[in-house]
Amino acid sequence: MSKVYNFGAGPAMLPEPVMERIRDEFLDYAGMGVSVIEISHRSKQFVAILEAAQALFRELTGLPENYRILFMHGGARMQFSALPLNLAGRSASRKALYVESGNFAGLAIKDAAPFAAVQVIASSAATNFDRIPELNPAAIDQDAAYLHITSNNTLYGTRWNSFPQTGDVPLVADMTSEILSRVIDYTQFGVVFAGLQKNLGPSGMAAVIIRDDLLGQAAPQTPPLLNYTTCAKDNSLTNTTNTFAVYAIKLVLEWQQAQGGVAALEARNAEKAGVLYRALDESGFYRGVARPQHRSQMNVTFRLPSEELEQRFVAEAEAAGLYALAGHRNVGGIRASIYNPMPRAAVEILAQFMAEFERRNG
Amino acid sequence: MSKVYNFGAGPAMLPEPVMERIRDEFLDYAGMGVSVIEISHRSKQFVAILEAAQALFRELTGLPENYRILFMHGGARMQFSALPLNLAGRSASRKALYVESGNFAGLAIKDAAPFAAVQVIASSAATNFDRIPELNPAAIDQDAAYLHITSNNTLYGTRWNSFPQTGDVPLVADMTSEILSRVIDYTQFGVVFAGLQKNLGPSGMAAVIIRDDLLGQAAPQTPPLLNYTTCAKDNSLTNTTNTFAVYAIKLVLEWQQAQGGVAALEARNAEKAGVLYRALDESGFYRGVARPQHRSQMNVTFRLPSEELEQRFVAEAEAAGLYALAGHRNVGGIRASIYNPMPRAAVEILAQFMAEFERRNG
Repeated sequence: MSKVYNFGAGPAMLPEPVMERIRDEFLDYAGMGVSVIEISHRSKQFVAILEAAQALFRELTGLPENYRILFMHGGARMQFSALPLNLAGRSASRKALYVESGNFAGLAIKDAAPFAAVQVIASSAATNFDRIPELNPAAIDQDAAYLHITSNNTLYGTRWNSFPQTGDVPLVADMTSEILSRVIDYTQFGVVFAGLQKNLGPSGMAAVIIRDDLLGQAAPQTPPLLNYTTCAKDNSLTNTTNTFAVYAIKLVLEWQQAQGGVAALEARNAEKAGVLYRALDESGFYRGVARPQHRSQMNVTFRLPSEELEQRFVAEAEAAGLYALAGHRNVGGIRASIYNPMPRAAVEILAQFMAEFERRNG
Repeated sequence: MSKVYNFGAGPAMLPEPVMERIRDEFLDYAGMGVSVIEISHRSKQFVAILEAAQALFRELTGLPENYRILFMHGGARMQFSALPLNLAGRSASRKALYVESGNFAGLAIKDAAPFAAVQVIASSAATNFDRIPELNPAAIDQDAAYLHITSNNTLYGTRWNSFPQTGDVPLVADMTSEILSRVIDYTQFGVVFAGLQKNLGPSGMAAVIIRDDLLGQAAPQTPPLLNYTTCAKDNSLTNTTNTFAVYAIKLVLEWQQAQGGVAALEARNAEKAGVLYRALDESGFYRGVARPQHRSQMNVTFRLPSEELEQRFVAEAEAAGLYALAGHRNVGGIRASIYNPMPRAAVEILAQFMAEFERRNG
């Protein structure tokens, strides 16, 4: 097989040195003679991996000591239920505020409904989520339990450039598709969560950051594996964790650190996204989906003049080794996901392919 | 590193050919040029893996068509919450019956309490769970939503040899530590679940079998990723599944099939357990924990004359390449977990080590 560049939105490509290391030590972890996936989650070797992952995460994010780092089962979607179960009780009326900026924000709203009095205070549904909606500060009811946003919208390729001031209402962000891709002041947030399968590791698990003072308020009917307080108390080992995923996160975080940390990755990500957005802006053939002021640096979305051309684009790209460029099944079009591990060279090859495809079909 | 035999209770050893195959194709799945953990859970390649795993599971278990096979996040512990959320509503009084036969049965009881009117109808707590408790058939209230048992008790090394007749009350079994290790008539059960990390694959996920007529009865406050009906409707792809685990299950099931299926594995497991139980029975030094009539074929538990000797046993065994023989932190003692992949040769080496240790210390 010749070189393939994987633009899939997630489960996404992981850094090549990480993948090679997993392969190389797969049958024998640290000279134990057994695989890392065959050791107890309570063994000293595995607990060392877990704690190293947490320490690296704290270092890379600059997270203050009053925040906990949890690894929880089920990806970001499980957090759509866990969040209201854990936090809605902060408000006497169980009011929880949401901003609807795309598909996953919509699912978060739907999943929260059984557990909270959900109020959608802003939405960009009317413009097919081509932007981050305007948020009227007066709409942030100070009696609400929290305000939930999706910091980067994978399907539509939009992101929040800066985050709303919410006063005493904890701001909660689903950062699944951009965690650790740009420098962020996490003290703006009460809770941040991210499914691993884009910038952090394999699928099936979420990293959750929570400010200490938000613990201890879960509804009595919160399953223990969805309870932030239980998970924090047990250091993410309430039950057998996904040991493979935790091991992989640690390696991904070590790689991020070796790349120069989040600031260095952010600079590289801006360059990579810039290559593709310039290609869109200079073309009369391709049309960017996201409003320029809300463009994601992680997911670059665009349309071609017809769906037929889009299908041909995806097929020819795949034949050229540019894999998984089809947009999400709900929205169609083209999406290039260019998370931290995507090399700049791959983005330039894609831009070149786009120019050639336009020449032949424009 | 010389050869190591891993007697860990879980995450446990997986079959060597499976581990080698994962390593060999880790960077390039099926000639795609990318890893199986880097492809979309909705790609045709991954869906083929998922469906092959389900088909193999059905074939190996002889499961009738009116049962669904689900793969759900979080391991068996998540099912301790999911089960009452999904099924307690079958009973007007939300009554759910439990048999307390060990540590995990106890956790299942505790986790169900917020969602069901839990009634423990038998317990072997009084004898430190050295047996499966006697179950009075009259205690099986026909108005109950279900009866939950733990078919094999990992910590204590006991198992149900045959299963109770429950009339119209669906029998539910946590089979985490013995799934696919012996031939079972699954039509006795309404629901069976098993964390993967003992006989099926890596940790972080559960396989769930459910009879069709038990779907559609979840409480409105059931998180979608804990909802059997949602999971069945979406064929276990409600959200991004743990793709690595599903891929690994498929390989483990292929290996089981190549071994001759469950009947062949059961015969081998009985021989392996027989080697160790004979060693216990012929010794005045070692003392088996489980009553002979309820001995597990998967977890062989025993004590030495003192805790000091037990610690020495574990340390010397490890030095001899016999890894992870310490009993569970809650109960101490020695535990040899000998799931399907454990070769008979390893069990014989352990029996030999036991004899030599007794000679030196007895």
